Amino acid sequence: MALVVVDVMPKPEILDPQGKAVTQALERLELPGLTVRQGKRFEITVEGEVTPERLEQIKQAADMLLANTTIETYNVRVEGQ
Amino acid sequence: MALVVVDVMPKPEILDPQGKAVTQALERLELPGLTVRQGKRFEITVEGEVTPERLEQIKQAADMLLANTTIETYNVRVEGQ
Repeated sequence: MALVVVDVMPKPEILDPQGKAVTQALERLELPGLTVRQGKRFEITVEGEVTPERLEQIKQAADMLLANTTIETYNVRVEGQ
Repeated sequence: MALVVVDVMPKPEILDPQGKAVTQALERLELPGLTVRQGKRFEITVEGEVTPERLEQIKQAADMLLANTTIETYNVRVEGQ
């Protein structure tokens, strides 16, 4: 069993209303000077070993399924084998 | 400027319909053997330095604002100073 993590974040030029709402909530809690962007985290448990071929398939899935690459960027990494 | 990342994930015993939907979509794409859990990733840009006191405030904010600790766990870490 291995763990692959895919992080999906809104591109810097894209408005992020959820992140903005959190930023404003932090200000109301008297925690200024913090700017929040909100994205998604996918934890993918892989049966068996993460071969380079398997990782390539997961990258394709991230590109097609997990991220909307028009407005989001993604990062795929193996966290534990 | 420093970056603090907060990952929020559903607790293992909590159903995760979004993650399940992605898992099933991967099966339909002929990528079996992958189990997905979906959570949130917050990237917090901090003005100035992340002092231990500042980090403690962010942990409190994660606990109160970013995660619903009844059903979610969270992890706070400094990614770049």
